[in-house]
Amino acid sequence: MERVRIGIVGYGTVGSAFYRLLGANAAELTRRMGVEIEVPYVGVREPSRPRRGIRPGTKLVKGYKEILEDPKIPIVVELAGGAENPLELVREALSRGKHVITANKALLAAHGMELFNLARRKGAELKFEAAVCAGMPIIKVLQESLLGNRISSVLGIVNGTTNYILTRMTEDGLGYAEALAIAQEKGFAEKDPTLDVSGGDAAQKISILASLAFGCWIDYGSILSEGITRITPKDIEFGRASGFVFKLIAQAKMAEGWRADGGPADASEKLPLVTVFPALVPQAHPLAAIRGEYNGVLVDCDFLGPSVYQGKGAGGDPTASSLASDLGDLAKIVSRGAGKISR
Amino acid sequence: MERVRIGIVGYGTVGSAFYRLLGANAAELTRRMGVEIEVPYVGVREPSRPRRGIRPGTKLVKGYKEILEDPKIPIVVELAGGAENPLELVREALSRGKHVITANKALLAAHGMELFNLARRKGAELKFEAAVCAGMPIIKVLQESLLGNRISSVLGIVNGTTNYILTRMTEDGLGYAEALAIAQEKGFAEKDPTLDVSGGDAAQKISILASLAFGCWIDYGSILSEGITRITPKDIEFGRASGFVFKLIAQAKMAEGWRADGGPADASEKLPLVTVFPALVPQAHPLAAIRGEYNGVLVDCDFLGPSVYQGKGAGGDPTASSLASDLGDLAKIVSRGAGKISR
Repeated sequence: MERVRIGIVGYGTVGSAFYRLLGANAAELTRRMGVEIEVPYVGVREPSRPRRGIRPGTKLVKGYKEILEDPKIPIVVELAGGAENPLELVREALSRGKHVITANKALLAAHGMELFNLARRKGAELKFEAAVCAGMPIIKVLQESLLGNRISSVLGIVNGTTNYILTRMTEDGLGYAEALAIAQEKGFAEKDPTLDVSGGDAAQKISILASLAFGCWIDYGSILSEGITRITPKDIEFGRASGFVFKLIAQAKMAEGWRADGGPADASEKLPLVTVFPALVPQAHPLAAIRGEYNGVLVDCDFLGPSVYQGKGAGGDPTASSLASDLGDLAKIVSRGAGKISR
Repeated sequence: MERVRIGIVGYGTVGSAFYRLLGANAAELTRRMGVEIEVPYVGVREPSRPRRGIRPGTKLVKGYKEILEDPKIPIVVELAGGAENPLELVREALSRGKHVITANKALLAAHGMELFNLARRKGAELKFEAAVCAGMPIIKVLQESLLGNRISSVLGIVNGTTNYILTRMTEDGLGYAEALAIAQEKGFAEKDPTLDVSGGDAAQKISILASLAFGCWIDYGSILSEGITRITPKDIEFGRASGFVFKLIAQAKMAEGWRADGGPADASEKLPLVTVFPALVPQAHPLAAIRGEYNGVLVDCDFLGPSVYQGKGAGGDPTASSLASDLGDLAKIVSRGAGKISR
């Protein structure tokens, strides 16, 4: 059996869940991938502090330097979060021709263009299924499953925190502050919930989805976005009475452009229009059924027509599921080529 | 730009839709796949009869012999349907080491084990995203996206014909015969609807999904299945009054086995239980929202938890979308290896 060695940087919620998955489902993974995965290194800030769940054969190391310098590690999984400087890590790993898997959406939204170009120049892959909607396989759907289609729109509930808050407000008649407090208590919202409730997190995610759907780079800073902080129980009741439900919708669609003289542009000159805003969704719409902390995305395209994907959009275990999917793709590439290590 | 040459066998609803997709979205496909697709041959029964939409550079040929004998065709797309003997075609193509894409679910349900073993021996790929639920990317989800998970159950509405009939019965109060007649008129049901309404088509599909989910071969002939022919408006009204809706559910789950002495087996000794039957689904269940000719599948697994996929489960254009997805995967393999033809 061939072995593929990977290095993981970061052992927080996501890193430890992914490491646990590799142990718990090792037999399944080997059967499906045709290779055995080994994790010689886990990079952390303080390697002297003992960690739960580390198995024999894995060495805790400080940061990522030792991992990147080992030529027998063809794949690096970046789960370091903010403080560890993931940009430097990913840049350096790709520069050395290593494949990188990341769950870092903010990194891609801010530096994606640079990093994907670097990966292409170095013949390395930069995989990021886990960066958008956690375990929901929306990246692979857009990149591979819908590859033969022209995509006309992507409509999504891509932030679990705000969907949880809106669901509690809708179903239990709570006010915004009350629902937020429950979300925080249950771990669905952070202490400082600004990035989620302002729509900023959704804007980062839809910028990545729109870039994939339309094949052009969308700067998330330019996305018109509004959060859910001003929605009141009165608004929700008004919607319900008319057969609608409030959802924070991240939308990307090809829209008609305008000529400089103000007239509508040629039908062929469409431009991507990307927005995030609380919308009234009809109760029979597929996205109205996405409840609680779940995410859902509706993609419309020319040959398939509409299709909908839904699943858990946050949490260590769902995110680990997507990291494993990316690892499966890379293991195929690596086991055919340079990273191959036979027993 | 590299070119990859493919042969298509069959130019009916699906074959012509796929051929049209390759023309209509050629630029998009080339950008996403990094290769240009050429179709030197389309195999049909009567090549002398003119066909709509055939582009310069494509030759109509009789059957599949000439296509299989051309060493410059690394990929064959089998869309020939019943009469053309697709089993012989797929066997021979794989034996020659050609990759095969098929939309033929009945072929896989009956001869899948033989064909997948043959493909493995020959180092060829047998791709079949289009064979189950048309354009819905459920095969790739099970094979690749959920690869890191242990799957505990797959619950699906996998037959659009019966879902259309049940939806009309539920929403418009029609009887079974009346709803069937409308489905036939709209092209959602065949003249002889037996395979669909008996649950047989759903059994073939769930046998394939269950085999992928659980990694063992499930013989569709052994699946307990019941169709929708005996459902009456009274049954539907009874369900509705209690908050349920009738759906034809194809189900595959790991169930506790039993010891020979009748006691429950070890918790570890679970067996796949696969059934097709009309079930009362609670109105808040994600599958209750799958209406009309749409398909929906709910997969439950250990790390991701539940996830749901929905889209058009029939028709030429949605099926063509899945064929293109398979072609994208094969083009990657071919362009790295033997089938590569540089300009």
